[in-house]
Amino acid sequence: MSDAPRSEVITIGDELLLGRTVNGNAAFLGQRLAECGVPVRWSSCVTDDIEEIQAAISLAMNRADVVILSGGLGPTPDDLTRDAIAKLYDLPLIESPEQREHVARLFQNLGRELPVQSLNQTLVLDGTDRLHNPLGTAAGIHLKWKRRHLFAVPGVPPEMQRMFEEQIAPLLAREFGEAIYFAKTLRMAGIGESTLLQRLGDLDPLSRRVSLAYLPNQGLLDVRMTSAAKDAQEAEADIAFAEHYIRERTGESVYATGRDTLPQVIGDILVNRAQWLTTAESCTGGLIASLLTDTPGASRWFAQGLVAYANEVKQEVLGVSANTLETFGAVSEETVRQMAEGARTNAGADWAVSVSGIAGPDGGTDEKPIGTVWIGIACELRTVAQKIQVGSRSRELVKLRAAHNALFLLYRELVRG
Amino acid sequence: MSDAPRSEVITIGDELLLGRTVNGNAAFLGQRLAECGVPVRWSSCVTDDIEEIQAAISLAMNRADVVILSGGLGPTPDDLTRDAIAKLYDLPLIESPEQREHVARLFQNLGRELPVQSLNQTLVLDGTDRLHNPLGTAAGIHLKWKRRHLFAVPGVPPEMQRMFEEQIAPLLAREFGEAIYFAKTLRMAGIGESTLLQRLGDLDPLSRRVSLAYLPNQGLLDVRMTSAAKDAQEAEADIAFAEHYIRERTGESVYATGRDTLPQVIGDILVNRAQWLTTAESCTGGLIASLLTDTPGASRWFAQGLVAYANEVKQEVLGVSANTLETFGAVSEETVRQMAEGARTNAGADWAVSVSGIAGPDGGTDEKPIGTVWIGIACELRTVAQKIQVGSRSRELVKLRAAHNALFLLYRELVRG
Repeated sequence: MSDAPRSEVITIGDELLLGRTVNGNAAFLGQRLAECGVPVRWSSCVTDDIEEIQAAISLAMNRADVVILSGGLGPTPDDLTRDAIAKLYDLPLIESPEQREHVARLFQNLGRELPVQSLNQTLVLDGTDRLHNPLGTAAGIHLKWKRRHLFAVPGVPPEMQRMFEEQIAPLLAREFGEAIYFAKTLRMAGIGESTLLQRLGDLDPLSRRVSLAYLPNQGLLDVRMTSAAKDAQEAEADIAFAEHYIRERTGESVYATGRDTLPQVIGDILVNRAQWLTTAESCTGGLIASLLTDTPGASRWFAQGLVAYANEVKQEVLGVSANTLETFGAVSEETVRQMAEGARTNAGADWAVSVSGIAGPDGGTDEKPIGTVWIGIACELRTVAQKIQVGSRSRELVKLRAAHNALFLLYRELVRG
Repeated sequence: MSDAPRSEVITIGDELLLGRTVNGNAAFLGQRLAECGVPVRWSSCVTDDIEEIQAAISLAMNRADVVILSGGLGPTPDDLTRDAIAKLYDLPLIESPEQREHVARLFQNLGRELPVQSLNQTLVLDGTDRLHNPLGTAAGIHLKWKRRHLFAVPGVPPEMQRMFEEQIAPLLAREFGEAIYFAKTLRMAGIGESTLLQRLGDLDPLSRRVSLAYLPNQGLLDVRMTSAAKDAQEAEADIAFAEHYIRERTGESVYATGRDTLPQVIGDILVNRAQWLTTAESCTGGLIASLLTDTPGASRWFAQGLVAYANEVKQEVLGVSANTLETFGAVSEETVRQMAEGARTNAGADWAVSVSGIAGPDGGTDEKPIGTVWIGIACELRTVAQKIQVGSRSRELVKLRAAHNALFLLYRELVRG
């Protein structure tokens, strides 16, 4: 083992141990700490018990250069992280005017008095740095001890992530920054991990210099390229080579680089053209509209969407013909075409996306098993339809895969013009 | 801490430490071990290094009754779990005719010769029981040592899960079946964690016998009560007492026990009454409809939903008056009332829920900051409206909190009749 700096992650909470929550925080910290040049060497999860937490911290601070604790910073009696650090390093709790003001303001924004139970959120550990939590009342903790760093961050993912990105990552970069890590993500859809690997073929030209991580998400696939080259210029060249190599083999599947989502990319195209989009959803039940409206500024290109769950609604509101529904059924090419065209006319929109499928657990047949989904796209020039077959594990997953595929087909058609 | 049996999970692999894979195996084992009466008390993740694996096993076998190692059983040089156990307990590797035949047959089914690299997969540890792996070449290991159990299972999720269900779970049930763990979840909404704690007051009457875990989720709050009493009758009495104590102090906030979701509870009420529901969503953008349609059989009580994002749609499709929109604005009591009433009439439904709010990041004002949300409910007898103020962390969170609150208000009104 080299003497490169190493980190340890400790996540706290019975809900993790008992499997009620999958440990996404450990995965996030694992990725980001490696990118910051301090790869995780040990990771453990402990129960809400002060002695267990103290034992885990002691062990970690004896072997790792950087230790991150996540969870147990809230106001309730089973939040014990701060107490564990206080006991272990004999640090008193003191008032922090900044923290008190921050907590008071958060409650004020909610129109509520600061409850007695939250008063302990206004205290900080003497001898440590307070990490500001713009999203919540739980302050983070940074303790330097014998050239080692101990950080305590909240367990709520958005609070933890923001605190890490804005306060911890820059600090680690300053401290351990010799290793330049350069990363870029290619976002794809309509291609599976195994197909991608087949197309990439012999990875040798890449694998020497760039490591690839595949992050599939229900019909979407992110490919994260990381270079650990010695200087920024070399790293950028490595990544550019890898991106070219991958794009050559997967061209039309890439819809974005970096963090842009499919709805964001779709919205940007629509805004640039001053066009409007509408939705007509059966089996996705509003999920496509909801994904679209997760995008800030969606009101500039999305005015109206319909969930047409019952056949009567497809017929009466969208104008799908009774004959079509009888002859081909609600899950058919003909139905989604008429749904998309009807929705586009109803809303006076430039584009419409429609979906009809079998989400299960009932309703599947030999001919149309659960997971059969038809997608329709209508614009002024044409209407297209596509059938996909997704796994049938759960309604939620069928809906999500169907929605992602529908958004990707819409994106492809938008690009066609 | 009681002397109830406890387990430890050790997952092995750099892909977990570096966050390339989320640790779903730890979550699966956490759930299932708790259900088998051997709740997980420690969970750790270690790198593919034989000394680290040995250290983790030693520590675990000194404190847990059951230890499960997942990963590192494959044929490649970085699969070191079996070697670590062999060294630690001084067990020789021996030929196993059954395992050899199994591995040979797997390759035969693929039409391939048994490769030299996989020959080590035909060996087993002397003094241990071999756990059969019907899906792959990696045999599992079961070692009994000083009344403790050490299991090694593959890291590939389907192989691990099947081995656990078919071979480990029955064994644990036989061994630890005496300890009765009894748990029940109260599902609440419209109440925060700090308010709940305030209402519960002095927890002493509960905390001696029942442990409570609070699982907040954007406006929803699950309270899980767990008793580790010595027999089932005592455990059930403990839980009944705790439930009564909590319900007395939070009565109207509880919408379900166990696993039922708010949409399921709503759907059950509607089905029983043969009534229909419709939605008219502005800021939630289809999320409420999507949550409702996550419920199997939603088509029996949900036929149609509208996303009315633009003011024109509220006016033209739902019949909100221009005067209302001008005088009070889109985010107002008057608007959501008219939205709900219009949606109910349009869809010919018995119930309608409407939402209009400011999801951000733009559009907030001093009077109506980001996170201001109005909810309307209309039925034949009445229309009600409620204003809530949710945090402003992100659009997704504002939407989710607004949707949960809207569903809870709908539930309350359904119960009122």
